Amino acid sequence: MIDSSRETRSSLVRWIPVLLTTGIILAAGPPEGVTRNGWWTAAVFAGTIVGFLSRPLSMGPMVLAALVTLVAAGAFGAGKHAAHAVLAGFSDETVWLVVAAFLLSGTVVRTGLGNRVALGLISVLGRTTLGLGYAIAGTELALGPIIPATTARGAGVVAPIVAGLNQVLGCSPHGNRRSTGAYLVLCGAHANLIAAALFFTGMAMNPQIGGYAYDRWQIRWDWTEWFKGSCVPGLTAMALLPWFLYRICPPDLKDAREASAEAAAELAAMGRWSWRQILLAGLLAVMVAAWATEKLHGLHSTSVTLLGIAAILALGVDGWENFTGDRAAWDALIWLGGLVTMANKLNDEGVTTWFANNVASHVSGFSGPTTAVILALIYFFSMYGFSMMTGHIAALAVPLFAVAKAADCPPLLIVAMVSYFSNLCGCLTNYSTGQVVLYFGFGYLSPQKWFSVGLAVAAFHLVIWLGIGLPYWKLLGWW
Amino acid sequence: MIDSSRETRSSLVRWIPVLLTTGIILAAGPPEGVTRNGWWTAAVFAGTIVGFLSRPLSMGPMVLAALVTLVAAGAFGAGKHAAHAVLAGFSDETVWLVVAAFLLSGTVVRTGLGNRVALGLISVLGRTTLGLGYAIAGTELALGPIIPATTARGAGVVAPIVAGLNQVLGCSPHGNRRSTGAYLVLCGAHANLIAAALFFTGMAMNPQIGGYAYDRWQIRWDWTEWFKGSCVPGLTAMALLPWFLYRICPPDLKDAREASAEAAAELAAMGRWSWRQILLAGLLAVMVAAWATEKLHGLHSTSVTLLGIAAILALGVDGWENFTGDRAAWDALIWLGGLVTMANKLNDEGVTTWFANNVASHVSGFSGPTTAVILALIYFFSMYGFSMMTGHIAALAVPLFAVAKAADCPPLLIVAMVSYFSNLCGCLTNYSTGQVVLYFGFGYLSPQKWFSVGLAVAAFHLVIWLGIGLPYWKLLGWW
Repeated sequence: MIDSSRETRSSLVRWIPVLLTTGIILAAGPPEGVTRNGWWTAAVFAGTIVGFLSRPLSMGPMVLAALVTLVAAGAFGAGKHAAHAVLAGFSDETVWLVVAAFLLSGTVVRTGLGNRVALGLISVLGRTTLGLGYAIAGTELALGPIIPATTARGAGVVAPIVAGLNQVLGCSPHGNRRSTGAYLVLCGAHANLIAAALFFTGMAMNPQIGGYAYDRWQIRWDWTEWFKGSCVPGLTAMALLPWFLYRICPPDLKDAREASAEAAAELAAMGRWSWRQILLAGLLAVMVAAWATEKLHGLHSTSVTLLGIAAILALGVDGWENFTGDRAAWDALIWLGGLVTMANKLNDEGVTTWFANNVASHVSGFSGPTTAVILALIYFFSMYGFSMMTGHIAALAVPLFAVAKAADCPPLLIVAMVSYFSNLCGCLTNYSTGQVVLYFGFGYLSPQKWFSVGLAVAAFHLVIWLGIGLPYWKLLGWW
Repeated sequence: MIDSSRETRSSLVRWIPVLLTTGIILAAGPPEGVTRNGWWTAAVFAGTIVGFLSRPLSMGPMVLAALVTLVAAGAFGAGKHAAHAVLAGFSDETVWLVVAAFLLSGTVVRTGLGNRVALGLISVLGRTTLGLGYAIAGTELALGPIIPATTARGAGVVAPIVAGLNQVLGCSPHGNRRSTGAYLVLCGAHANLIAAALFFTGMAMNPQIGGYAYDRWQIRWDWTEWFKGSCVPGLTAMALLPWFLYRICPPDLKDAREASAEAAAELAAMGRWSWRQILLAGLLAVMVAAWATEKLHGLHSTSVTLLGIAAILALGVDGWENFTGDRAAWDALIWLGGLVTMANKLNDEGVTTWFANNVASHVSGFSGPTTAVILALIYFFSMYGFSMMTGHIAALAVPLFAVAKAADCPPLLIVAMVSYFSNLCGCLTNYSTGQVVLYFGFGYLSPQKWFSVGLAVAAFHLVIWLGIGLPYWKLLGWW
């Protein structure tokens, strides 16, 4: 009885920051140009993010509570229309790419294909856990230019390998070697974002930024220009990341020579490939090819992944009951879908525009390059308010370029920083992009831990991309 | 090895009717007024429904395969747009009402509230299984005029009680007393549809039909008129339904006196209500009140149900992991959501209009009343092509009224038949409306069995509603 009431009290205490955040924003009232409904959404969205940290409920129920609060407050209108509008995020193609990646990742593990690849990696590179971290980063670096959908690349290819590594090493989210699992998961998530920042084709929205830059300044911002600016800080960041994460989140398993020898023996003992493994490997190869060639066939990465899932089921590689029983996938559908609904609403109701205008009014009076850096930093940290990197770019890049032009920022400098930071800022939260959602969903890190590591990685990036990047871009004559 | 190859061969054979259906429709080519994409959707939709019966895959994978086939065929356009459009059904408010009802139903069972109500019902009325069938029908009859959302009423209130009855009686979908479970589930599903047909407020779309009737003929078709026409055949049907189902799907447990005595003892042994049961009963009472009063507060039944789910989680009545682990809910989301996408597409691409015009060209030359009956029968059985009763009404009632007016059908006769058949036709399939999806999802009947019972119940309804209804409506002077 005492425990139960203590638990209740602790749960009530955890609501306080959520209610305070929401209440204060509501009390402040909507600024000029923001609708009442937009402001309600902003207040509840902010409360939800705070709730991810103070944890009165886990993330799924937290987002559900946010959605029904907004419906009850009339922020989505009334009746059937409101019920439909508040569910809009549940048909978002990125959200379903995440769900499909969860399902796919489960199949890779269940068929033993993930184990097979992981055992191979460990037997070759696994003398130390740090070596495995570098193997993951290397895989991202190799696939980065080829697969432009970060979620397909990270969640569809690399994350299942990481899951296999964790299984082979005996890591579990709730017991043994949790910190080793966490280390490898963080390597996967953050290396993916660096690969996305490195290449014009590293992320689906990157070419769009090139388009925005051309529209505003008529400058060419293509594959070569992009990489010219990103190669020095980007390759430095990629080279240091596994070591940096090793320092801030040390794995409990460090010397893995024994595991490596065992892995070689285990791999030999696994014997011949099963027909399920062969079929799945073939399907994955086709999917990778299809993700890389969207322009040729016009099938979006979500469509390709769903085709893969359907083929897995039709060929009997995996069973439907394994998919419907994938708790983590349905959990992600709810909380990510709900966040997407709210983020789109923030955009539709003028909150994003108000934010951009507000920024513009505060950065006057600085020199062009200084303004560019300030704008880039604001852009970076504004990612806390977005549920998807693509949404962040689509909402803010254009108004930010407008502010930058008015403030006489050097075009190539601001375009470069916005391009790279668009991807790097995904490090901040556990809801920034599909692959991050998947890695987080493996359960090795609490949301609080994910946020604090995210802040450290953000500092790591700013030191590298501003400390090395700025002088390097000066050398290139970009400012 | 032999077993595996035999299984594969049998699975390949099961694809033949699916591919034949789809192939023949595709080969016939789109008729005038139907787009290529609409015709592709019609062909794949028909193949999917055939696949529900021939079972090369279970329903979820079948629908997924249909969706990706349509995307690959370009029926939804290309790129991101196609990926988004094919997922549209996953944000449908009716689909989520079904998902929420699954979750709610699980909570009612897990807290023991369902058991408590079921034990009470059995100890009072449970001397025979037939008596329990009548208890279910009586509950639907009592709630019919009050809760206009059929899915909220059936899936939210009555189905959890049926689940409780089955648990207390020791029924299981895969073993003991499967036929008893099936009998009670069928009573719930089909009684719900009769209650929907009986009352103007028995189903959310019913008043809409009144509106269509007024638009076409300027006749008043309100609560009183509706019930004047439905009371005689409707109450007859409700009175006979439990007996009829008892004849065609006899439960293995017939004499339940022993169970009834045990139930009374068990109920006494259950002791005091737990705080979880009290909270849940209170929440359900508020939800019933809110479902019944949508017009006052403007919250759609889906919003109310999601509010209830959020409250269940926030108050700790049930745990989130029980919800994310509810396989049947996520299975229903996939197959029902996918069907809704396809059905909406059929409507948008002109297939429905083409169907209505085609009907019109075939019913000329009959007398007004004969035409009305033919039209009503076509309307009834066209439900096979719709994934939701609401969609069926929205798509076909208006064009059908136009045809009826041109053919000089007696207005009140055709309006009455369309009104009642709009609800009764839900008996045909396992995907006709939310509560049917839920009852089917309990797993006591295969899709084939559900369809064959559905056809028998359709015959039962046509005998009653035409055999008794037509003379009765003649007496009322409606034709």
